Amino acid sequence: MIVEMITGATPEEIDAVVQRAKSLELDVQLNLGTDKTVVAILGSNTGQLPTDTFAVLPGVESVTRVMKPYKLSSREFKAKDSLVTISGIEIGGKRVVVMAGPCAVESKEQLMEAARAVKEAGASILRGGAFKPRTSPFSFQGLEEVGLELLAQVREHFGIPVVTEVVDPHDVGLVAKYADVLQVGSRNMQNFALLTNIGKSKCPVVLKRGFSCTITEWLTAADYLLAEGNNQVILCERGIRTFEDSIRFSLDISAIPVIKRNSHLPVIVDPSHAAGHYSLVPAIAKAAVAAGADGLLIEVHPNPKEALVDGLQSLTPSAFARLMEELGSIAKSVGRYI
Amino acid sequence: MIVEMITGATPEEIDAVVQRAKSLELDVQLNLGTDKTVVAILGSNTGQLPTDTFAVLPGVESVTRVMKPYKLSSREFKAKDSLVTISGIEIGGKRVVVMAGPCAVESKEQLMEAARAVKEAGASILRGGAFKPRTSPFSFQGLEEVGLELLAQVREHFGIPVVTEVVDPHDVGLVAKYADVLQVGSRNMQNFALLTNIGKSKCPVVLKRGFSCTITEWLTAADYLLAEGNNQVILCERGIRTFEDSIRFSLDISAIPVIKRNSHLPVIVDPSHAAGHYSLVPAIAKAAVAAGADGLLIEVHPNPKEALVDGLQSLTPSAFARLMEELGSIAKSVGRYI
Amino acid sequence: MIVEMITGATPEEIDAVVQRAKSLELDVQLNLGTDKTVVAILGSNTGQLPTDTFAVLPGVESVTRVMKPYKLSSREFKAKDSLVTISGIEIGGKRVVVMAGPCAVESKEQLMEAARAVKEAGASILRGGAFKPRTSPFSFQGLEEVGLELLAQVREHFGIPVVTEVVDPHDVGLVAKYADVLQVGSRNMQNFALLTNIGKSKCPVVLKRGFSCTITEWLTAADYLLAEGNNQVILCERGIRTFEDSIRFSLDISAIPVIKRNSHLPVIVDPSHAAGHYSLVPAIAKAAVAAGADGLLIEVHPNPKEALVDGLQSLTPSAFARLMEELGSIAKSVGRYI
Amino acid sequence: MIVEMITGATPEEIDAVVQRAKSLELDVQLNLGTDKTVVAILGSNTGQLPTDTFAVLPGVESVTRVMKPYKLSSREFKAKDSLVTISGIEIGGKRVVVMAGPCAVESKEQLMEAARAVKEAGASILRGGAFKPRTSPFSFQGLEEVGLELLAQVREHFGIPVVTEVVDPHDVGLVAKYADVLQVGSRNMQNFALLTNIGKSKCPVVLKRGFSCTITEWLTAADYLLAEGNNQVILCERGIRTFEDSIRFSLDISAIPVIKRNSHLPVIVDPSHAAGHYSLVPAIAKAAVAAGADGLLIEVHPNPKEALVDGLQSLTPSAFARLMEELGSIAKSVGRYI
Repeated sequence: MIVEMITGATPEEIDAVVQRAKSLELDVQLNLGTDKTVVAILGSNTGQLPTDTFAVLPGVESVTRVMKPYKLSSREFKAKDSLVTISGIEIGGKRVVVMAGPCAVESKEQLMEAARAVKEAGASILRGGAFKPRTSPFSFQGLEEVGLELLAQVREHFGIPVVTEVVDPHDVGLVAKYADVLQVGSRNMQNFALLTNIGKSKCPVVLKRGFSCTITEWLTAADYLLAEGNNQVILCERGIRTFEDSIRFSLDISAIPVIKRNSHLPVIVDPSHAAGHYSLVPAIAKAAVAAGADGLLIEVHPNPKEALVDGLQSLTPSAFARLMEELGSIAKSVGRYI
Repeated sequence: MIVEMITGATPEEIDAVVQRAKSLELDVQLNLGTDKTVVAILGSNTGQLPTDTFAVLPGVESVTRVMKPYKLSSREFKAKDSLVTISGIEIGGKRVVVMAGPCAVESKEQLMEAARAVKEAGASILRGGAFKPRTSPFSFQGLEEVGLELLAQVREHFGIPVVTEVVDPHDVGLVAKYADVLQVGSRNMQNFALLTNIGKSKCPVVLKRGFSCTITEWLTAADYLLAEGNNQVILCERGIRTFEDSIRFSLDISAIPVIKRNSHLPVIVDPSHAAGHYSLVPAIAKAAVAAGADGLLIEVHPNPKEALVDGLQSLTPSAFARLMEELGSIAKSVGRYI
Repeated sequence: MIVEMITGATPEEIDAVVQRAKSLELDVQLNLGTDKTVVAILGSNTGQLPTDTFAVLPGVESVTRVMKPYKLSSREFKAKDSLVTISGIEIGGKRVVVMAGPCAVESKEQLMEAARAVKEAGASILRGGAFKPRTSPFSFQGLEEVGLELLAQVREHFGIPVVTEVVDPHDVGLVAKYADVLQVGSRNMQNFALLTNIGKSKCPVVLKRGFSCTITEWLTAADYLLAEGNNQVILCERGIRTFEDSIRFSLDISAIPVIKRNSHLPVIVDPSHAAGHYSLVPAIAKAAVAAGADGLLIEVHPNPKEALVDGLQSLTPSAFARLMEELGSIAKSVGRYI
Repeated sequence: MIVEMITGATPEEIDAVVQRAKSLELDVQLNLGTDKTVVAILGSNTGQLPTDTFAVLPGVESVTRVMKPYKLSSREFKAKDSLVTISGIEIGGKRVVVMAGPCAVESKEQLMEAARAVKEAGASILRGGAFKPRTSPFSFQGLEEVGLELLAQVREHFGIPVVTEVVDPHDVGLVAKYADVLQVGSRNMQNFALLTNIGKSKCPVVLKRGFSCTITEWLTAADYLLAEGNNQVILCERGIRTFEDSIRFSLDISAIPVIKRNSHLPVIVDPSHAAGHYSLVPAIAKAAVAAGADGLLIEVHPNPKEALVDGLQSLTPSAFARLMEELGSIAKSVGRYI
């Protein structure tokens, strides 16, 4: 942590910074510049120390972190890539894992048809929402436990693992009974009560990025899961909020190489929620694989025109099958397969 | 809802839009332009209809809402300003109500000292956090129920109502036992399970704006509270995430007149969380009152240098007292008082 | 253009809207809803009409465009993809065209070495800046006309066309004498005096997206070039400003499919200025080709450690050569070649 | 400048950083932490040094500035507030100076009427655009030199100084002949050729903030003017681009206290271009004065319904007169007058 003093800071003010660092058992090195004094605070846990610790002291102009605020999810903490295994399917390895299915579970027929289509086209995991966090209280909120039961039936029938969202910290046990992977939605990335409970469950989890959270905040949220001993964490980039209005969220393609450099966790991409429109999904999905994503989470609906939720961003089974072929070729170009 | 067809849309495509609208018992009017056909879908509940309903149909280029997606919080639904009354203190009337106190409850001594200081300076409501949602799992997470008990004791001692945050949907009843006003934090603005439970509690609530949510999304979240019959809703602007890096969050000053035009709910401003630095708090607080805010939520700590959370943004008791004098004068300029 | 009246608008207010539309020789259709009246204004040039024309009238709540504000650059104006030809190299066809070279021209040796390296690796066009718009007046501002002469010499020597930036409207003729393609930098995307002069020059031009401009504004800026009769326009996505701080600018990958849908102009991607760091360039470049970009603009410097400008984002010749191989494979996956 | 080495950086890599600093005649201090080495680069001109100078070296993880990149506009360079004097009117002193008038000069009648109204209501300076940078080539582009002549006539008639925009670097001399203050528009904040010419002219100038530029970039742009010896620089906050869509640009109210802390230059606020709608202008204008702005730039049109440009954001003369009274009262509350 680098503490920059104001021009003209007094020796007493500088000393107060030094004393506070020492009281926290941190090492200190003074840098007496011609204009300004800069105090370097050294120690392996300064990343977890709030910058306010020093910024509140008189004569301090600014405090800059050198260590990152996240720890357990960092590449420095664990150099080797983490693999997450779901019913024998490895995420984070050579295979680009595709999770696909409808936004919301609507009925047994709809889910069966979707599962058949995505499995045939080569998807490894079925997605489907039973609890739907909706921006308006007047929208369809999901089938809840009935939806979970349908997911379990379809999983059994097709032998395909399922991923589904959990929104209430007290539902973690319930959802984990039915699902192979839990999903934390974008709006819950910083729902710390939820993260803590999922951490305790040890169930594999897809942690979607908050649509206005930095990568640093995202990895710090992942620390909540890891700190409870759950190492089965998959990150999912799904678009961030920007000023651009031609798309629902701007997919942050650079998040993939940045995560690969700073973290050992696998990262997948959800092109559907970013795009908001089916016509943009294929280009984004292909870009994600080319950039090094470990997987994709794609919405596919047997009949998008009749979907209860987010039909506009869903691919039809035939569009999905075409996309899977193209993705296979791109995966090969970057030394992977689907 | 305005459905714009692509250039060259076929009569069948146009008819499919018309039929879908009719099946939802909505009125339709066709506008046959020289280049494009535009279909107006009319009816009083189109605001609550997803735009996807029509956007998924073939030949549709775009769908634009005319009605807002929120309803109960809108000025059109209720023309007259809503007043929220907390222990006899009216929010939304002539008085600009100031809520002040420490970010986190740390100890009885700290809370007593803070309460005395803010009450003497003219604040009407004491703030203090017992449950603290923190971005890092390694940070202080609050005193939890012990903190709530301290708040209740101090409230009793000074006869000042208290506002405190609730983060878990299952804690609403517990927190409501101790507090006069519940607070929903920025990261929970779209935690719909939490909103629904607070809605059912009928307890007065401060709904902070999600730091990356539009005003439309904020009012739609307020609808979750109102739809459960809780009319005691106070909105709180606390800064939005932008590219500017000299401040933690950019306070959206225009949110105040926009809310006043589009909603009947009172709106207060939290300059402390926006600023992130005590030196910026007074200017923002004064601006908020000048722009028409119904109140302020300000962090005051008896000894910011020793604060466990967010000390840098806390005012000292003496700085707060000076600010309150200036605010009184500005309130008078806009026909109000503190 | 859709004019939504306020609830309770008077017949006189509605009539004023109708009369104004008629005075502009536009067609009007009234949609009398139960709650609100909506007036549709129809005509083929409403895209070029300011929304204020109607929004200023009493009783108007909002005005929404149906037609886009850009015209000449739109897919509706010209359905077929435009090709730009530079010394026999077609941009916008099957080939993904790579433009590469140093950020700034520093010396003949540096430019010769860079040109040799990028040509050998398969780049078709040499980039190099002679006029450098710099955020600080204390930074190196480029070699100016001397730099242009070096570019011309190196072009001659290697038989490779060159692209270089022009920043002053009065330098267009000068720069066009030396360069094959003019470049408009991100900070000049809305420098309309510059655009008009380049439009008149008829010289091929790369129009970089303003780092905070929407795609709609970008295509409207392209209309300035096209309106002067210059059809040789190449768009270049180079990253937008967002809240994310791990990268200099967030590359908007979705801009590629959005441009392809809405415009006939070719679009290339500059991964270097978005990334700001060489380690992120390859992933973004590969993603761009997978998403359908017609070309790339990549910074390559023979010795990045000694570069006068932007060394950190420059690839070494060997890193560039490796990347070109990977790009070739991805281009093939999407039915193209490099 | 703080150079953080990667974990495991070699002694040679650390030494290369040290040697480069020494070759630039900078002081160096090594901080050998347990995990990482941090090199502090000290010297009074490190703010003007690109961070790339060190970031390109092997083994460097990141480089952080301690000194700001701007210099001449900084409070550290000049502690005392700068005053800009225009025809005897001081900007930056006790008086809050109001500049008002139409967006564009349309005719002599319109300008006369506007000038009379704003002068009567208490404005000190008349605004009016002769050169209009417009996003679309199909919009009205201003009366150009004819407009300048009208401004000069009206200035003479009412004895009121005028401010008007200059967009082409080669027009600086022409515009300065007619105007008392030049205005640099938001889209030209980083048009460095324009800034340099205005710097040389020594004419008082209002430098509008780029709508997506940080405050640091804005002050660095001001350095372009100051570096040429022009000290008559007034900053103008006019709203920044954010995700919020209820307003054209979000006014950054915190820019005022941030500028006051970091710079000696006066800062004014343009509520009209931020708001985009007349109904939001008064609240923002009042907030600006309460927050400490040194002046306002407000659009007033005798007949907004017939304005050729931006009528929707213009106040009528009577609305402006009402606002001026309220502003006077707020100015008094913060120890100033209008």
